[in-house]
Amino acid sequence: MLRTHFIQDVTPDLDGKEVVLAGWVHNVRDLGGKKFILLRDKSGIGQVVVDKTSPSFEVAKELSQESAIQIKGTVKADKRAPNGVEVSCSELRILSKAKAPLPLDVSDKVKADIEVRLKERLLDLRRQEMQAMIRIQSTAVRTFRETLYKHGFYEIFTPKIIATGTEGGAQLFPVIYFGKEAFLAQSPQLYKELLAGAVERVFEVAPAWRAEESDTPYHLAEFISMDVEMAFADYNDVMKIVEDVIANVLENVARNHQNDLAILNHRLPSITRPIKRVTYEEAIEILQSQGLPTKFGDDIGTPESRVLNKVLEQDLYFITDWPAEARPFYTKRREDNPKISESFDLVYRWLELVSGSSRNHTREVLERELRARGLNPINFEFFLKWFDYGIPPHAGFGMGLQRFMLMLTGLQSVKEVSLFPRDKKRLVP
Amino acid sequence: MLRTHFIQDVTPDLDGKEVVLAGWVHNVRDLGGKKFILLRDKSGIGQVVVDKTSPSFEVAKELSQESAIQIKGTVKADKRAPNGVEVSCSELRILSKAKAPLPLDVSDKVKADIEVRLKERLLDLRRQEMQAMIRIQSTAVRTFRETLYKHGFYEIFTPKIIATGTEGGAQLFPVIYFGKEAFLAQSPQLYKELLAGAVERVFEVAPAWRAEESDTPYHLAEFISMDVEMAFADYNDVMKIVEDVIANVLENVARNHQNDLAILNHRLPSITRPIKRVTYEEAIEILQSQGLPTKFGDDIGTPESRVLNKVLEQDLYFITDWPAEARPFYTKRREDNPKISESFDLVYRWLELVSGSSRNHTREVLERELRARGLNPINFEFFLKWFDYGIPPHAGFGMGLQRFMLMLTGLQSVKEVSLFPRDKKRLVP
Repeated sequence: MLRTHFIQDVTPDLDGKEVVLAGWVHNVRDLGGKKFILLRDKSGIGQVVVDKTSPSFEVAKELSQESAIQIKGTVKADKRAPNGVEVSCSELRILSKAKAPLPLDVSDKVKADIEVRLKERLLDLRRQEMQAMIRIQSTAVRTFRETLYKHGFYEIFTPKIIATGTEGGAQLFPVIYFGKEAFLAQSPQLYKELLAGAVERVFEVAPAWRAEESDTPYHLAEFISMDVEMAFADYNDVMKIVEDVIANVLENVARNHQNDLAILNHRLPSITRPIKRVTYEEAIEILQSQGLPTKFGDDIGTPESRVLNKVLEQDLYFITDWPAEARPFYTKRREDNPKISESFDLVYRWLELVSGSSRNHTREVLERELRARGLNPINFEFFLKWFDYGIPPHAGFGMGLQRFMLMLTGLQSVKEVSLFPRDKKRLVP
Repeated sequence: MLRTHFIQDVTPDLDGKEVVLAGWVHNVRDLGGKKFILLRDKSGIGQVVVDKTSPSFEVAKELSQESAIQIKGTVKADKRAPNGVEVSCSELRILSKAKAPLPLDVSDKVKADIEVRLKERLLDLRRQEMQAMIRIQSTAVRTFRETLYKHGFYEIFTPKIIATGTEGGAQLFPVIYFGKEAFLAQSPQLYKELLAGAVERVFEVAPAWRAEESDTPYHLAEFISMDVEMAFADYNDVMKIVEDVIANVLENVARNHQNDLAILNHRLPSITRPIKRVTYEEAIEILQSQGLPTKFGDDIGTPESRVLNKVLEQDLYFITDWPAEARPFYTKRREDNPKISESFDLVYRWLELVSGSSRNHTREVLERELRARGLNPINFEFFLKWFDYGIPPHAGFGMGLQRFMLMLTGLQSVKEVSLFPRDKKRLVP
């Protein structure tokens, strides 16, 4: 390994000790015949000083921002230095020299717009904000999984090349599969339902694809879908799992990422448990009471959600019991009122984060619901077949990682929180 | 929820208590005017008795294997019963009735061949062996990630729809991406290298695709790739990470899956740390000493590995320092001998599990290595561009989850350990 210490571990306690550090030149300045290098590694930024008398001074003159370097030096506790410590350099090695000028300023003195940032993405990902985002994302996904393991769920991997679209074939990317037409999965929906019919409790974190024509801050052609399915359970059971996931992620991010949240200048939403639930019909009444013309059957979009967020005084709220016809064919209707389904969305302010429901578990009902949506049950036989063999009642939900990350970082576009986003105009880098 | 207890939690301590259970009819028998139901849920199999005098007896007559049911009853400690306990049923509800006969015997009295099993996959996945496999897989992937978190790695998600093939375009599946040709990623190789150039330590667990024409027990068209990349490090550093991953997974599987290993009748391989390392040249010498005609430059295939496994007396061994020309363009040559590369494979008996190396980190060398392989650097500009901006020395490795699962389960084909395998002839279920 090219280092003895990470920068964050170089503390005043090491005063007088020799260390080897490696990282990138965040900045370099001349001051009174010395070179002051701000050295950045994954753990943070620290100060290195190269004296004019040092044999490394000539090398230091060659340094450019974002070059990868290795330095050997002696730790000096110094209250004036950042972190109360600096390293006096005795050896300096350039591992990989960066060209100047850089197409993007990593130290953030010059702000670039999103198009430039995505084009120069690797440099953009070295910015402190993006590093904070990546660290928070890693914790979020890890906590999602740990919460599910605790509830006895198994991790699954469902096929991504499929013969038929989940909900009828819109917005699918075709794949040429050994000379035949196939598609990229829009969602693991049908496969996760089948697997709940074999091992009861399953989850998956995996890519999913939608050929989105529109260019919005909330849509990607390729996104990470976090999916959960649970047998012998209904939508009330899985809403409790959703609550647990959200609460645990918020707690772990708050506990472990104070510094990252400060970099992002973001305050996490507060959560009250149980999370506020309003039925769709109650939501419509609230909207009407606020003078909106929304009526039963209408969608609840961003403008409507903004009103609900305000009236409910909640950052996070469930809207439950949606009109059955507005939901996909696998959604179960309520027994006491078949116009309504056992379904829910979790909304963060005005952004839909999670969508879930109890599912139909008999072939007869599934076939009827497919036909009612103009879909041909024959195309779904690979799925329907198994409902002849004891698929129990089940429920589940899905959430998009990138939307979730908007809540956790305060960033504004799902493209920013995707490392290398894919959209209609972007296939590289 | 449709149950108060999982079957494994119904112990003699609960004698006399009322419980509600839910699961599948694993088997049902008539004995002395009583119905004995073997009820299976995700936790195990337990015995339920329905007396002729019970109002549920008529319902019990309707039961078929693999129907999903819910029962209410009283726990009776009984040394003769499996687990020392049975449940005397007072209420029986059929949640989802299974047709008879089943196309596959879930209780394993009749063995089916792999083709039938993959066709009737959902029933196959209810078999005890497959349930054990799914549980072990969940632990393996979880432990892989936890090991990497401990070493300071971040989880990443790289794009799966790409413009250019990683290693030159063979075996790629074309995707129609908004009317343009694109491809499914064979590997996250180039993207993980770039990300190591931004956040130093990254890993990913995600699908990857190869249009494999051949039908072998070791190849899939879609597989799960577990990938690691580490900046400011070389192949010796990442071999230590490999060792740690393998040792931790073996330890966790041994500790938590004794019962599953018994179901699979499998003994885990032993591991000695450090794992035995032989150089490629030493391996060739061993093979020659055993009378094989292998010479420098030849591949080490299955027959050769079988010999090495025997001579080395090791279940797990590294073969290091492969001929540079046999490895991909991003592999670094040794400075002291440019015919040899800083590379390794980890072999389990005769199966390659892991492949890794130090990587080239200068544009000049990468371009030369591309050209030497008949590849045009212009097609790799999306990757090469960043080497102008301080990509440090780095190293990494990749391992296929399904091959790893063969080692952990003793199963014989990667198709068995993939939930819904994809190969040249299989696109459903």
